[in-house]
Amino acid sequence: MSKQSTKPPSGTRDFLPRDIARRRHVIGVIERVYASYGFVPIETPSYENLSTLLGKYGEEGDQLLFRLLKRRDALARVLTAGDPQEADLADLGLRYDLTVPLARVVAQYRDLPRFFKRYQIQPVWRADRPGRGRFREFYQCDVDMIGSESLIAESEVLAAVCQVVENLGFDDFTVQVNHRQLLRSMILAAGIALDAEQSALVALDKLDKVGAEGVLAELAERGIAPDAAQTLLELSRPAEADGPPLAALDRLADQLNDDDGQQAIRDLRELNTLCQATVAGRYLRFSPQLARGLSYYTGPIFELNVAQLAGSIGGGGRYDNLVGMFSNQPIPAVGCSLGLERLLLLMDERDLYPELQISAQVIVCNAGAQAEDLLLIAQTLRQAGLRVEVYPNPQVKLGKQLQYADSAAVGIPIAAIVGKDELASGQLTLKNLASGEQQTLPLSEAATQVSVWLS
Amino acid sequence: MSKQSTKPPSGTRDFLPRDIARRRHVIGVIERVYASYGFVPIETPSYENLSTLLGKYGEEGDQLLFRLLKRRDALARVLTAGDPQEADLADLGLRYDLTVPLARVVAQYRDLPRFFKRYQIQPVWRADRPGRGRFREFYQCDVDMIGSESLIAESEVLAAVCQVVENLGFDDFTVQVNHRQLLRSMILAAGIALDAEQSALVALDKLDKVGAEGVLAELAERGIAPDAAQTLLELSRPAEADGPPLAALDRLADQLNDDDGQQAIRDLRELNTLCQATVAGRYLRFSPQLARGLSYYTGPIFELNVAQLAGSIGGGGRYDNLVGMFSNQPIPAVGCSLGLERLLLLMDERDLYPELQISAQVIVCNAGAQAEDLLLIAQTLRQAGLRVEVYPNPQVKLGKQLQYADSAAVGIPIAAIVGKDELASGQLTLKNLASGEQQTLPLSEAATQVSVWLS
Repeated sequence: MSKQSTKPPSGTRDFLPRDIARRRHVIGVIERVYASYGFVPIETPSYENLSTLLGKYGEEGDQLLFRLLKRRDALARVLTAGDPQEADLADLGLRYDLTVPLARVVAQYRDLPRFFKRYQIQPVWRADRPGRGRFREFYQCDVDMIGSESLIAESEVLAAVCQVVENLGFDDFTVQVNHRQLLRSMILAAGIALDAEQSALVALDKLDKVGAEGVLAELAERGIAPDAAQTLLELSRPAEADGPPLAALDRLADQLNDDDGQQAIRDLRELNTLCQATVAGRYLRFSPQLARGLSYYTGPIFELNVAQLAGSIGGGGRYDNLVGMFSNQPIPAVGCSLGLERLLLLMDERDLYPELQISAQVIVCNAGAQAEDLLLIAQTLRQAGLRVEVYPNPQVKLGKQLQYADSAAVGIPIAAIVGKDELASGQLTLKNLASGEQQTLPLSEAATQVSVWLS
Repeated sequence: MSKQSTKPPSGTRDFLPRDIARRRHVIGVIERVYASYGFVPIETPSYENLSTLLGKYGEEGDQLLFRLLKRRDALARVLTAGDPQEADLADLGLRYDLTVPLARVVAQYRDLPRFFKRYQIQPVWRADRPGRGRFREFYQCDVDMIGSESLIAESEVLAAVCQVVENLGFDDFTVQVNHRQLLRSMILAAGIALDAEQSALVALDKLDKVGAEGVLAELAERGIAPDAAQTLLELSRPAEADGPPLAALDRLADQLNDDDGQQAIRDLRELNTLCQATVAGRYLRFSPQLARGLSYYTGPIFELNVAQLAGSIGGGGRYDNLVGMFSNQPIPAVGCSLGLERLLLLMDERDLYPELQISAQVIVCNAGAQAEDLLLIAQTLRQAGLRVEVYPNPQVKLGKQLQYADSAAVGIPIAAIVGKDELASGQLTLKNLASGEQQTLPLSEAATQVSVWLS
């Protein structure tokens, strides 16, 4: 067979055992916390009918879908007809996010709880240009509460997410919150027409990245008058970083006087009160310039940021008009998505992983015994709860067996050396490969000694 | 938005919380056992370059690949050129099994252990006609030991797999073993030409399903002379089901006299000796008619069967020429694959699942308190390790809150009812929704009482 590339496809990754240990650690923390808040897991197929996906993510999203080529007769028909177009050639698409599948599931299964608290941790695929830490296959960790209009939904989602981030070992993060109705109220107060709302929000959302000048320039480009742009920027002025968390809210309560804006302010105050009763309280900050790009949010929005990290580690908000899209009825929803890949990267940089040994703890080595003796001893050690490998080539010299165990690629800390004479008297020799220490002891005491050395 | 189907795509499934609990239980057992044998996990991307996959699964396999349509410019070029064919339109394909990705990984990462014991539990996709319990997206659980020619590899893989099946709760299963070299020896002894070997094995493999007459008919169809066919069938005659596990092997040792056949017989005897030192011993049976369809096996082969179930729950063998396909060198390998979907189905039929409660254990209900009080109490109970939901609509009457908790779709066993007056004296009321029992007690004692009721 000719030599070909054995790299994973562009934008994807192989996860070797060490990677898996880290990913499982983080996913385990997320799952345990979400479960403690009463969220339950679902999983959906890797691909959906294209008709389910198309038109849900905007034009750019449609472009980024991975489409599955039709098969056999269905493909033959399209090719025979001649001049096929992209839309004719595919019938299925890889999952692009976890929200559209959730909406489909909520519409399909009518016996779900009325308040459906679900989490979902699965890969999604986007045909983006790979590079700069961007992947085409990456995991999303979504947590959503469906069916409640109460701010308790927001506070539970925020508390769960903050508890996850705390349990992973972070303490220098903030939860910025804002409200879509408040943003609209600011836009109206600035004299910007509502049909430019989405456009203005996209520009405002970049304040962190491009600064005030940058936002003003972009607002001008988007046809918003300089005065209006300036006013919007004033209204959405961030509070002092070390001031009271709701300082800017107090200011806006004076500056805005439409009903929707005042209601949004009351919502945010209540949300703050609720959050103070949870782990989220100490991380919460009102940020009037937080806009979040996605157009589907309808109420409070939030974003999690870690100090000194550009970009967020997660975000979400209330989106009352999306989950019902397949059910033909409005269904209230609050959700938050954590970026798994970014969390993993940060934890790596900050060395936040605990010891995650997953490979064997003991290797059973041969020094003149029968192969079946090695297997029996391995069995005994495994029954004591140890992870045990048997050196699979009994002819090899003991020194080489130990060298293998101690090599960087393997790294098994303890060898159980089985010799003929010792075995005849029910004994074996344990060797601690790090310290060189060695003990000959009865087989029945081996597991205990191994545990002592491991701890 | 117009009404459209909200079913998962044909051949795929949504997994709701109860399904996930069962799948995680089984996967957890598999992972823990494999880890105890020193196998470590890897994961590979959901899709591979088509060039990696094509030609590896035979013509039928190529047909069953899900191919990803090329994107943007690459697609435009193909469509503009005119008269596109299937091969021009796709560049990537969904993973079809876990063995080809393993071979790619082994070739790509040169610092893997020399004896690489890996397991991999991930979905694969096949564009099969769905139906009759066949899925287009389904999980494979592969465990393989790469790099060893010793029969210790076979015995470790077999012991690990038997331990999994035992730990899942099965005791009425068998591991049929045979040897490819022995099959070849039988084929030669029957006077069948070696170029008909694969064809004869495919026919023989159906003995269980179609009986001796069926196999003879199929062998005739495949151009094998009646005498030869009859001899092959005699040689491969199964042993009595309740006879000694190696009875048929003793018979063949007399009937066959070529070197390869005798070596295979010695291998199988040694494998049996090794397995008797492990959990696999009591399940092992030599089955001379076991052929396993796949052409890539080179040594011992095996299959796990559960009593009264047509078809197997897993199987594998030695395949020394496959893993090296991307490395341009022979790399010995032994592996076994368990069919997760089939195991799940069987466990369901036999009611082998333990209690797998994953939803909330306590619901915090409101009887006149503030919303933030409910959240505080939930927080306290969660810190005690409980899974807690807060009823998210504090205005609703208590009776309705309890009704929700007790409904079939929700099923939360215990309610923590928070009233204004009780709270003022640091108390709440716990209600066991199954028994109706009710206790008013200090908040600090609530978690303990909940644990008593749950156990």
